[in-house]
Amino acid sequence: MVSAYQNRKILVTGGLGFIGSNLAVRLVHAGARVVVVDSSVHGCGADRRNLDGVAADLRVIDADIGDAAAFAAELRASSVIFNLAGELSHIHSMRHPARDAELNAMSQLRFLEECARSAPGVRVVYASTRQIYGVPRYLPVDQTYPIQPVDFNGIHKYAATAYHLLLSSQKRLDAAVLCLSNIYGPRMALHIPGQGFLGNFLRHALLGRTIEVFGDGRQLRDPVYVDDTVDAFLLAGAARELKSRTWNVGGPEALPVAQIAAIVSAAAAAPEPVLRPFPEERKRIDTGSYSTDITRIREELGWRPRVTFAEGIASSLEYFRREPPDRLKPRAFQPLPKLRRRPLRHPRSLAV
Amino acid sequence: MVSAYQNRKILVTGGLGFIGSNLAVRLVHAGARVVVVDSSVHGCGADRRNLDGVAADLRVIDADIGDAAAFAAELRASSVIFNLAGELSHIHSMRHPARDAELNAMSQLRFLEECARSAPGVRVVYASTRQIYGVPRYLPVDQTYPIQPVDFNGIHKYAATAYHLLLSSQKRLDAAVLCLSNIYGPRMALHIPGQGFLGNFLRHALLGRTIEVFGDGRQLRDPVYVDDTVDAFLLAGAARELKSRTWNVGGPEALPVAQIAAIVSAAAAAPEPVLRPFPEERKRIDTGSYSTDITRIREELGWRPRVTFAEGIASSLEYFRREPPDRLKPRAFQPLPKLRRRPLRHPRSLAV
Repeated sequence: MVSAYQNRKILVTGGLGFIGSNLAVRLVHAGARVVVVDSSVHGCGADRRNLDGVAADLRVIDADIGDAAAFAAELRASSVIFNLAGELSHIHSMRHPARDAELNAMSQLRFLEECARSAPGVRVVYASTRQIYGVPRYLPVDQTYPIQPVDFNGIHKYAATAYHLLLSSQKRLDAAVLCLSNIYGPRMALHIPGQGFLGNFLRHALLGRTIEVFGDGRQLRDPVYVDDTVDAFLLAGAARELKSRTWNVGGPEALPVAQIAAIVSAAAAAPEPVLRPFPEERKRIDTGSYSTDITRIREELGWRPRVTFAEGIASSLEYFRREPPDRLKPRAFQPLPKLRRRPLRHPRSLAV
Repeated sequence: MVSAYQNRKILVTGGLGFIGSNLAVRLVHAGARVVVVDSSVHGCGADRRNLDGVAADLRVIDADIGDAAAFAAELRASSVIFNLAGELSHIHSMRHPARDAELNAMSQLRFLEECARSAPGVRVVYASTRQIYGVPRYLPVDQTYPIQPVDFNGIHKYAATAYHLLLSSQKRLDAAVLCLSNIYGPRMALHIPGQGFLGNFLRHALLGRTIEVFGDGRQLRDPVYVDDTVDAFLLAGAARELKSRTWNVGGPEALPVAQIAAIVSAAAAAPEPVLRPFPEERKRIDTGSYSTDITRIREELGWRPRVTFAEGIASSLEYFRREPPDRLKPRAFQPLPKLRRRPLRHPRSLAV
């Protein structure tokens, strides 16, 4: 699989972010000519330091994916486009729905239209999310699960998922969509609040603080280590023919959240976790237990998660202990309005 | 039901359009104090003449629903908001996806946020579409049918549907969503291309032309007469407690398209229809046969379609024969780019 990327030009959107940077680093090591596109939108986890060690071996374009016309030549030259740009915070999306719509839907629409124009038929591997399925009625969740997002982030990630599928059904793109469960590991944006409970747990543990678990702690989650996740992207990007266009990606174990907290705190020698009532804001968008049916991706792409949760947490702690302490610094939510106008490229009026 | 609207202030978005104007006229006759909001976006079917006869009895606000802050006082004063603004053309949406996203998703998001702010808990009855279900795998289609839109219009109408449901689950709105099958009748925008096959058939028949049926003509459709459709909106707006939030609305008969064409042409004394191969552009977004399971709306809202297709077509022909001939004038698609800038009200940047 790795040899499939040797000397090939690969574009990674959101390549300064958590999963995107892990993917970019691996692609560089696999001998690919990597171009990262990332506009470092505040709150989305982009960090130049994520590319430490490979910065000289790839190129970073500081651009919004919605302005893809500006880097159309890069699209044309790319063998595969890994599309990981976006906002993942459910909490941000509930506080600023229009911002989430702009980042996760409108920008994706403009980007994919430009891909279809400049690089017709190109393979685009998209980082979608289990959040599009909402609150599961049965477990584990497979790809035929009804679409029922419970927050704005899920609605807009679903819209972008549908854009990928629609343009592929029209043979204008060759998209592969990965619906990701909870991903964790090195290069997570631990300092940004609202990025999911695993980052929160890791930060607390690294700072020697007590992890707070909301609710009774019995909800299941199946965390996926980021290296395994990167494998799934590489396999989807390299597969010759796609039997499907969507695959759910989940971890090796479905664990109660309380046990996840206990494993993290024990590994970091932090105090034992405590249970706390759900804050109202989080309760409203909570999705209950979740676990992933990975049958399809195992059978069609030959992927399975290899790293146990305990192993993945040990590697994550090791990584962050070598990093400067400000990567852990918890900051409060602090919206800073900054208006930005964007011309509507398509006509609002149609003479008919 | 009609008495439920007497003297109540009712807001109708898209009230100059096809279904919206029929609804507004009925509300005026029911004694409601009606405010129509419509920005007459070209290509969406708004026509001042649709309100002929009641223009003096209601108020029309010329505003984009996305700018709802400008008429927040009207939202606050409204007992019920009927939300019918939008672009319904699948063909337009495929040619101008970003325009469709702006009209059907972004504007709706801004509008609903303003409703939730200015009129928390207000009943909003939304005109959604069967298009969110895409190509049916079984018939008739009920409300639990998987979401699988096959065009941009379906994706964005689904996003707006999800906004209504999400804000209702958060108790910020009290939304009722009607997923409409093919609606026809007086005040249809017959002169605008790409508004669905029924308008096309009616226009051809009224002009004495031969109706062209694409494909083998065996696909099923269950057209709903607009007066029946208006009944469904009025019932959803007046219901005290909503047992559900979505209802599929379909017609009294599922008929093959060739038969639909034959009924229309015979009623208008136009030539017999002919079968033609599908144009590629239409083929790609065709959804095959469709018929609606109306069990839920019948049981929960007491609605059923009363007008047979033959009766509805007779009334429609009668209406349009009294109208000036330019309402039938078929015009070609002729996109006229006209950029319009819109400030992003929410921060793209979040200091975190």
